[in-house]
Amino acid sequence: MKKIMSFAALPLLALSPAFATVPPTPPDPAAALRDAALHGDDLAWDITEGLTTEVGQRLAGTEAEARARDWAVRRLTELGFSNVHIEPFDMPVWVRGAEHAEIIAPFPQSLVVTALGNSGATPAEGIEARVVGFNSVEELEAAPDEIVRGRIVFINHAMAPTQDGSGYGVFGAPRRQGPTVASRKGAVAIVVRSVGTDHHRNPHTGVQTFGDGARPIPAGALSVPDAEQLQRILDRGREVRMRLTLTPRFTGTHPSGNVVADLPGSDPSAGMIIVGGHLDSWDLGTGAIDDASGVAIVTAAAHRIMQAGQPRRTIRIVWFGAEEQGGLGGRALFEAHHGRDHVVAVGESDFGADHVWRVQHNLAPQNEALGARIRALLMPLGIVPGAGRASAGEDLGPWARAGVAAIDLDQDGTRYFDYHHSPDDTLDKIDPAQLRQNVAAWTAWLAVLANAPEEIGGVPPVGGGE
Amino acid sequence: MKKIMSFAALPLLALSPAFATVPPTPPDPAAALRDAALHGDDLAWDITEGLTTEVGQRLAGTEAEARARDWAVRRLTELGFSNVHIEPFDMPVWVRGAEHAEIIAPFPQSLVVTALGNSGATPAEGIEARVVGFNSVEELEAAPDEIVRGRIVFINHAMAPTQDGSGYGVFGAPRRQGPTVASRKGAVAIVVRSVGTDHHRNPHTGVQTFGDGARPIPAGALSVPDAEQLQRILDRGREVRMRLTLTPRFTGTHPSGNVVADLPGSDPSAGMIIVGGHLDSWDLGTGAIDDASGVAIVTAAAHRIMQAGQPRRTIRIVWFGAEEQGGLGGRALFEAHHGRDHVVAVGESDFGADHVWRVQHNLAPQNEALGARIRALLMPLGIVPGAGRASAGEDLGPWARAGVAAIDLDQDGTRYFDYHHSPDDTLDKIDPAQLRQNVAAWTAWLAVLANAPEEIGGVPPVGGGE
Repeated sequence: MKKIMSFAALPLLALSPAFATVPPTPPDPAAALRDAALHGDDLAWDITEGLTTEVGQRLAGTEAEARARDWAVRRLTELGFSNVHIEPFDMPVWVRGAEHAEIIAPFPQSLVVTALGNSGATPAEGIEARVVGFNSVEELEAAPDEIVRGRIVFINHAMAPTQDGSGYGVFGAPRRQGPTVASRKGAVAIVVRSVGTDHHRNPHTGVQTFGDGARPIPAGALSVPDAEQLQRILDRGREVRMRLTLTPRFTGTHPSGNVVADLPGSDPSAGMIIVGGHLDSWDLGTGAIDDASGVAIVTAAAHRIMQAGQPRRTIRIVWFGAEEQGGLGGRALFEAHHGRDHVVAVGESDFGADHVWRVQHNLAPQNEALGARIRALLMPLGIVPGAGRASAGEDLGPWARAGVAAIDLDQDGTRYFDYHHSPDDTLDKIDPAQLRQNVAAWTAWLAVLANAPEEIGGVPPVGGGE
Repeated sequence: MKKIMSFAALPLLALSPAFATVPPTPPDPAAALRDAALHGDDLAWDITEGLTTEVGQRLAGTEAEARARDWAVRRLTELGFSNVHIEPFDMPVWVRGAEHAEIIAPFPQSLVVTALGNSGATPAEGIEARVVGFNSVEELEAAPDEIVRGRIVFINHAMAPTQDGSGYGVFGAPRRQGPTVASRKGAVAIVVRSVGTDHHRNPHTGVQTFGDGARPIPAGALSVPDAEQLQRILDRGREVRMRLTLTPRFTGTHPSGNVVADLPGSDPSAGMIIVGGHLDSWDLGTGAIDDASGVAIVTAAAHRIMQAGQPRRTIRIVWFGAEEQGGLGGRALFEAHHGRDHVVAVGESDFGADHVWRVQHNLAPQNEALGARIRALLMPLGIVPGAGRASAGEDLGPWARAGVAAIDLDQDGTRYFDYHHSPDDTLDKIDPAQLRQNVAAWTAWLAVLANAPEEIGGVPPVGGGE
């Protein structure tokens, strides 16, 4: 709620009759629903506040995620949705242990570190080794094994904020591939600069998987200021020794699950729309932007459609489990329902709660009129049409790749990676005004597609789908 | 180096001849020194970067502070100052232990906590008790003892940023007096909302002292988001139980010390000027803004005076020890030197490295021409004259109160309490351009007072001095 632009004035200006220099077209009936959300939605805030306060962190496969599922079932039932239930699945569960990093020489001092998902463990007393630094995974790959063997690898980089979040792809490589490459080259451990755009002593965790038979090694992320500090120390050219303690462990196979709720449509033959976000979070913060706000936004929008009267198409809401471990809930849903349920459109909210700035959709050519209606409804919210193909997200991406129409409402990601996967992902990072703009945008497209009299077609699958 | 205004353009504009609508007065000879610092000083950055990188945190009385003293002696000697030496003193040393807070009921979750200075300790396994919340020390004072006894007290508050830092006085009360009041009323522990203006999961420590014979109890600060979370949980009206683990301890009496260096003046009878900041820091961050930048600013300014030729008056630089524990180094210096050395002016830098926005001085009436010169030299740096009496700071305040002239250059404190006493007090919070503006301002007044041909008089002591 700090340092945030206001969206209160924007739609009023854009919708003002004074700007109508061409004969006005009759207002889209979805516009009133959109504007009611923009000016009055409290539900998305209530869900975000409630889930983050009454459950807090909810790491996949833990009892906290189970409490979150119970919370979700209760809330979705209270809201009047139908068929509210949990679809469970099992998963291997990794939990954090002790975490500490210390420069032993030449300048003794503590550094803030956190283990990456699936990190191997050090002994309880830690390990001590010389640090060897690289600027990228490519540089590490190119290094002779002998300068890596027996050492702690450090990969620095400099991710800058981008509105569309595209920095996360390239700058996420040290976290995703670094541990595997370092392990294969004989490193005893790896620490990477957090994949974050802030300058706070809060490290950013995230999943990584040891591939190609690489032996798991301890793998951590330093906070950005600590990574900069280590780089300055390395730059002085002396031998740098670090003691690293990371004692995470796998606790075995435990249940996770997706929470599913329906707003039943009047015409089952018209197909259903699935919207979702994920219920699980990393264990460092309370997962306000990742992704309590996502489940809140899609639920608040569907609830507005419900209150406006029964839609033609069923809207299915899914609060996915275990997204952070690689979209396990999304895969479980797809495997259980693809080919059985007639799904005609999907949409996922999993990029925080800042304002939607862009819409991308991959509606079939015969549905272009629906696309045009959606774009027109979103424009007064300041949302531009994008040229790309919609892909949904980690959880609903399988449907989009399989040829189901997808609508992506892209949130502004400029500050998303200041908080993402860090202890700083907490409720105070949510701006209620921007959250309402999200609900308004989601309400608009759901109102169009849920009630469209025409059929909603499929699109060509990506690479044959999943 | 992020999100910071630039000062590069400001002095150029203010000094531009195009703005001279009255006949120009001859330029003050100190103006060239000032401008050279503004545009070219690297020394303050080098000292700040070096101390925070090569020593890091330096808690008073620990071996880290001793390493910092050695670093300081080496650096001040290299710079060409004379009489570089350590003036040691002993102090009781308190060090941090394990720290963890957890809500047990009704909504189990971890909170981020850190111990306040001189906090008592819980057993290693922590204590568990019901939480009782208050909005202020006054509210706690007014509460019946029976609702406090056996409980963990929580004090919430809402410090907002101020440019002059005046919020720290009133909003610091929960930290300073809260533990004593809670202890006297029978609380088993206290946690306060961090005295900070940020919204990050970094708690702010700081000193507190159990007074009036109050038994030490565990006393911690929650990060601001965690305090807000606890308040939301309390607001739901159910019994809130917390497990708190804080295991700090006193390690006995150990040496601290002040590092002293002189730029000898040509006229010992003219009296000396003492400038300083503090060398010690809290143990959570690397003390970049509190107070590596302070010692760096005063040292860089004195070095510029040295390079311009021997001044009339000696400038003594003091890098104080153990400021954070209550100005122990400042008291030691005053006790050792007051009444012996002829000190005519003091100035202290201990409020970060953001730009100086205001000057206050308490020069004697017969020195008003010097005051006018200083104010005129500072105006092109955007510095306004303040109406208050200069008080120096924690370390040089005893001299100001005793009637020595003092010059306060007040830094902009708007974001100071985002970082102060927290893990986030690191080098990346220092803006080199604003740091140079500080050095320029200090160089200006030192050039005036160190070389003034007139005598610099004393002022009436405050309450009889110390």
